[in-house]
Amino acid sequence: MDEQLHTLIEFLKKPSVSATSEGIEETANYLKETIEKLLGVKAYIEKTKGHPIVYAEVNVRAKKTLIIYNHYDVQPVDPINEWKYPPFSAVIENERIYARGASDNKGTLIARLFAIKHLLDKKELNVNIKLLYEGEEEIGSINLEDYIEKNSNKLKADAIIMEGAGLDVKGRPQIVLGVKGLLYIELVLDYGIKDLHSSNAPLVRNPCIDLARIISTLVDQDGKVLIEGFYDDIRQLTNEEKELLKMYDINVEELKKALGFNEFRYNDKDKIVEALLTYPTCNVVGFECGYTGKGSKTIVPHKAFAKLDFRLVPDQNPYKIFELLKIHLQKVNFKGSIITHGFEYPVRTSANSPVVKAMIESAKIVYTTEPQILPNAAGTQPMGLFVYKLGIKDAVSAIGAGGYYSNAHAPNENIKIEDYYKAIRHTEEFLKIYSNM
Amino acid sequence: MDEQLHTLIEFLKKPSVSATSEGIEETANYLKETIEKLLGVKAYIEKTKGHPIVYAEVNVRAKKTLIIYNHYDVQPVDPINEWKYPPFSAVIENERIYARGASDNKGTLIARLFAIKHLLDKKELNVNIKLLYEGEEEIGSINLEDYIEKNSNKLKADAIIMEGAGLDVKGRPQIVLGVKGLLYIELVLDYGIKDLHSSNAPLVRNPCIDLARIISTLVDQDGKVLIEGFYDDIRQLTNEEKELLKMYDINVEELKKALGFNEFRYNDKDKIVEALLTYPTCNVVGFECGYTGKGSKTIVPHKAFAKLDFRLVPDQNPYKIFELLKIHLQKVNFKGSIITHGFEYPVRTSANSPVVKAMIESAKIVYTTEPQILPNAAGTQPMGLFVYKLGIKDAVSAIGAGGYYSNAHAPNENIKIEDYYKAIRHTEEFLKIYSNM
Repeated sequence: MDEQLHTLIEFLKKPSVSATSEGIEETANYLKETIEKLLGVKAYIEKTKGHPIVYAEVNVRAKKTLIIYNHYDVQPVDPINEWKYPPFSAVIENERIYARGASDNKGTLIARLFAIKHLLDKKELNVNIKLLYEGEEEIGSINLEDYIEKNSNKLKADAIIMEGAGLDVKGRPQIVLGVKGLLYIELVLDYGIKDLHSSNAPLVRNPCIDLARIISTLVDQDGKVLIEGFYDDIRQLTNEEKELLKMYDINVEELKKALGFNEFRYNDKDKIVEALLTYPTCNVVGFECGYTGKGSKTIVPHKAFAKLDFRLVPDQNPYKIFELLKIHLQKVNFKGSIITHGFEYPVRTSANSPVVKAMIESAKIVYTTEPQILPNAAGTQPMGLFVYKLGIKDAVSAIGAGGYYSNAHAPNENIKIEDYYKAIRHTEEFLKIYSNM
Repeated sequence: MDEQLHTLIEFLKKPSVSATSEGIEETANYLKETIEKLLGVKAYIEKTKGHPIVYAEVNVRAKKTLIIYNHYDVQPVDPINEWKYPPFSAVIENERIYARGASDNKGTLIARLFAIKHLLDKKELNVNIKLLYEGEEEIGSINLEDYIEKNSNKLKADAIIMEGAGLDVKGRPQIVLGVKGLLYIELVLDYGIKDLHSSNAPLVRNPCIDLARIISTLVDQDGKVLIEGFYDDIRQLTNEEKELLKMYDINVEELKKALGFNEFRYNDKDKIVEALLTYPTCNVVGFECGYTGKGSKTIVPHKAFAKLDFRLVPDQNPYKIFELLKIHLQKVNFKGSIITHGFEYPVRTSANSPVVKAMIESAKIVYTTEPQILPNAAGTQPMGLFVYKLGIKDAVSAIGAGGYYSNAHAPNENIKIEDYYKAIRHTEEFLKIYSNM
């Protein structure tokens, strides 16, 4: 076994479950030592209010500086009895390594380190690298914003590569140029101190009915958001981005089957891709009010609440959308309180930016196939923090050792050994091309 | 202590909590024996799927027959530590008897029995009596409909007096000529088999948003029900009934304070009485969907449900309203299922019916004050079962030993001994006048 595989397997054998804190400290220390050993630079365990961030710089006095973001924490292993091998045993079977975190994202993390090492060894590293390894990605990156704000000088860079992308169902590398943003709020209506017998229904307003009405003023049957100004700041897709969407390949029937909803809005592949990646949404995550047990009880509930997430697209600003929402709620006579649970910026890096161009070119070399390029992901990642808090212009999620088959977040997570080596090569080629641009 | 008080106190000392079944059997047996001892007729313990009904007939071969309905079960005693005396000790203090069930409705039940006994003793009972004592009133009369259907021949009668009315805050006897009806349903929308990550929100319909929209098509901000035809069958109040409403006395500020809702619809006393007694309602009792725990989770829920009660007024038919509702739901694109939890008919007996006239006249004699007469109650009672299933034309809730002070359903339930004796006299006078009409 070569050093590249051996280092990965040792890393995979270390539990690092952020939700339970299992093995977090030991894994952070092991990562620090690994960086120092492979790259010959000093690495730091940096405290946060939660799990530490592992940080290191490789300064080759180049003109350009790149942040490489990964996380060393993993998802919990439940349901444990569905695993073929213990989740932290890193058993190899049929040219695959089985371990929690193999795909998300320890394989990718170590692959990138070896690529840097190889370039250093060959004296071919011509871009300064800042390595930022988070320990809380799987629990919502809850202390990352604070860390970034406090270290904004140290973290100056021209571009950043995130994790999260891998190989699609046909083995093509994904290159994701951005993320959706998020506004997460909770609406609470509380009209009294206790539920009333429902014979009083003629005398009082019902908070559940009022909240239902208010929700129906926010979004229509087709999913169109009815808040005035909501769509105003949306950046139109360029023709190039529209082409990328068309080239994006999904199997409609498989997707529908996997989601299992009978109330599916679209049948056309192009429409599905467009909606998934470019439509902002107002979604009700949860709603609770009054008596919800078995059978019947006759009350007027005094309180109702709903949790809503708004997925935002470039250049919607979550703070501005929140202001528009408050104006709307006043218009529709909402007499309650609003709790905020999160603001995340959307990002869409230009397909013409150096980091993206280098990513595409290097992917073609290593995988000898067209990469699958997404203008942005359907979901949300802390990418927006780097772009908006640090002013880093270009961000991209790409280079992943995991694939469609990898069972990320599920039992029997695994990667193909071959894909791990390809991720090393992809990183190496990318860094070379990018530094020459 | 005379026999009338002694018999009541012994009855109050017997627990008969329908919710827990505590003492139900013993109390039913004691009631049977008490009827037989006092009235010299045979009484029966009649089985149901739940707690038994105690039934007896006093046939004096009169032309008219009256059902007297009461229940021998009581509410649970919680919170037990707020009672001054143990709830089944029936302690007398300051001319009041403290016991669970004293007001609701064991005092009334025994008072009526003694009135019949007195008339029998004086050979002045000129109306046939059918005594029907339920053991499940406090748990929703769940087996009464079945019993009534199976015994419709035996239960033929000209009129019925129910329990539930007593003395108001000024000591005036209440006479309630009817009840609201009820339609209780649950709407369920289930679009999938599992909740989805909310990055899929653009692709699928959200059952919570759809259910909120559907609710907002059922009822507007002012409480007006938007189902076509909902108001069509409402019987207009007669001028006499309108007068009764105006004469009905409530303290608006006290009522508002007791309900404790800041979203109160009316301030005018007459408007409040009108709304409370004559407006039908569409009320959401409960609504649940998706994630309702702490903080944030980003899902599209696959399922949502809501429980709704419709309070109906004469002559709305709960089964017809249900048909109208189904038509409405189809119009607004409801793609879910409907669970029914209950259909109860509204009742409003004419103020000119013999039973009501006799009740008013006898109340004036005993209480030397104007009774408070309600065209119907704000709530629902099984009265409709007797009127619609048995074809009994006239029904009234009146004659109660309890008052505004009585803490029914609460700790330290009590009645004034004086009001118990007045209930005996009221029943006696009522039966005399009614039989002569």
